[in-house]
Amino acid sequence: MSLLVVGSVALDTVETPFDKAEDALGGSATFISVAASYFTEPVHLVGVVGEDFADEHIEMLKNHKIDLEGLEIIKGRPTFRWSGKYRDDFNTRDTISTNLNVFENFDPNIPEKALSDKFVILGNIQPSLQMKVLEQMKNPEFVVLDTMNLWIKHTKDDLLKVLPKIKVLIINDSEAKELSEVTNLIKAAKIIMAMGPEYLIIKKGEHGALLFGEGKIFSAPAFPIETLFDPTGAGDTFLGGFTAYLHKKGKVDFNEMKKAVIYGSVMASFCCEKFSTKGIEYLKPETIEKRYAEFKELSQFD
Amino acid sequence: MSLLVVGSVALDTVETPFDKAEDALGGSATFISVAASYFTEPVHLVGVVGEDFADEHIEMLKNHKIDLEGLEIIKGRPTFRWSGKYRDDFNTRDTISTNLNVFENFDPNIPEKALSDKFVILGNIQPSLQMKVLEQMKNPEFVVLDTMNLWIKHTKDDLLKVLPKIKVLIINDSEAKELSEVTNLIKAAKIIMAMGPEYLIIKKGEHGALLFGEGKIFSAPAFPIETLFDPTGAGDTFLGGFTAYLHKKGKVDFNEMKKAVIYGSVMASFCCEKFSTKGIEYLKPETIEKRYAEFKELSQFD
Repeated sequence: MSLLVVGSVALDTVETPFDKAEDALGGSATFISVAASYFTEPVHLVGVVGEDFADEHIEMLKNHKIDLEGLEIIKGRPTFRWSGKYRDDFNTRDTISTNLNVFENFDPNIPEKALSDKFVILGNIQPSLQMKVLEQMKNPEFVVLDTMNLWIKHTKDDLLKVLPKIKVLIINDSEAKELSEVTNLIKAAKIIMAMGPEYLIIKKGEHGALLFGEGKIFSAPAFPIETLFDPTGAGDTFLGGFTAYLHKKGKVDFNEMKKAVIYGSVMASFCCEKFSTKGIEYLKPETIEKRYAEFKELSQFD
Repeated sequence: MSLLVVGSVALDTVETPFDKAEDALGGSATFISVAASYFTEPVHLVGVVGEDFADEHIEMLKNHKIDLEGLEIIKGRPTFRWSGKYRDDFNTRDTISTNLNVFENFDPNIPEKALSDKFVILGNIQPSLQMKVLEQMKNPEFVVLDTMNLWIKHTKDDLLKVLPKIKVLIINDSEAKELSEVTNLIKAAKIIMAMGPEYLIIKKGEHGALLFGEGKIFSAPAFPIETLFDPTGAGDTFLGGFTAYLHKKGKVDFNEMKKAVIYGSVMASFCCEKFSTKGIEYLKPETIEKRYAEFKELSQFD
């Protein structure tokens, strides 16, 4: 049984208050797939890159047993590039430039062998493309979707069409407020779940995450980080860890969902420790379990 | 063994997006004492009111077995009055007026029988007065202190003198940032604990609370509230529930401190459900335990 991931593959130039990385590996599908690879295999990645996409990136993804049949490589054109800069407190990120390049005409084409995948992660791309993916799938039982303010603002109708077709929506607090048009997150969750998703996760950065579903709420803590290094990709990494843990378990109930939220948070915490995918490239199972235990220590009481 | 509470006793006029209360019972010592009364007795309240302070308030406090020998009643002058208005999202509160009245010359005089109290709660008053209280006490072993932006800004030197003499500092996130002069709360906690307190609690409103101490961190969830009614006094109520739980247990270690943070949060959640002290006046032990169990349900995972 395999897991399908559809999203962007990019080269990021990121400046933080401490350091700078140029043309480093990025993109939602990249972070999602690498994070997922620690829990399950194979991961079917569907995305697009240009001719300039370095072999070392391909090698790294393959080393994580990520199946790249769905990664289209377009000759003569450059890979999607994004450049951003974090302000001193890391709470604000300014986009310096976005060059969609090959990503501009991305038309996800799911390989034959991935069409029966029951677990599908729809990374943050236009809702109409997310819908196109679902239309190709034979029996997508557990679809997890990410989106962003841009799509909520400009393509809300398309988003509202895809939401009833998914199992879990994962967004951050500002996106939840924008989508629901209310500021209280508990109220926002009710409004958003009425739009279709059976479960909702609201990521709150340094304040952890909230999981809603089955009439219950779970509040997950954030890992205490004194000095962020680079939060780029942390949300995608969460998405990958969360979904792949459930994919491995095969069983999806609120109890397992809670654990999945913690595994997602664990992976995201590693992601923030280094530039690009470096924080999640070299993890060992025991390192992941150790941090899971630290999350437990952080939030459990008698 | 008894517990000393020093702070303000006030009459509040509060306007929320839903309703308004005029001259309702308020003040830090009031909320702290009532919340504490559910865990331990007697509570020695030290504060000051004017001649206009209604008998019904005195009766309510006495019914909660709160010892009022230290409540000075000044003839011919009015009680401290505060008036405020919450904006639509409850995240901002505008002070309409503050009339200190008898509170202007408050000079806490601890009754003889309370001088040996080992547990002391210093509600939010000038740091110099908090120090005056501690100077009167014989052997204050467990001192919990609250403060606010006003004192951090205008009387920081006085505050820095009292911090080494206390066990636990309880402040909110904006106060923690202001006191430490950094925005990351984990970093802020280290800086603040170097100022003296052995334990630190940072309240984060709808995001819960963080407890720091013994080199550990505990992250407590917030109770999911869809519609706030009136959060006035919630912080004081937390303070009372937290400290009185530990006072009852007699034992103070990180494990008990975690539970105390949850009991503080439980009491604060009840406080927000009604105006003034109404949300915490009529609680039953089983109602408190039920909500404690709900906090557990909200944050525990395997």
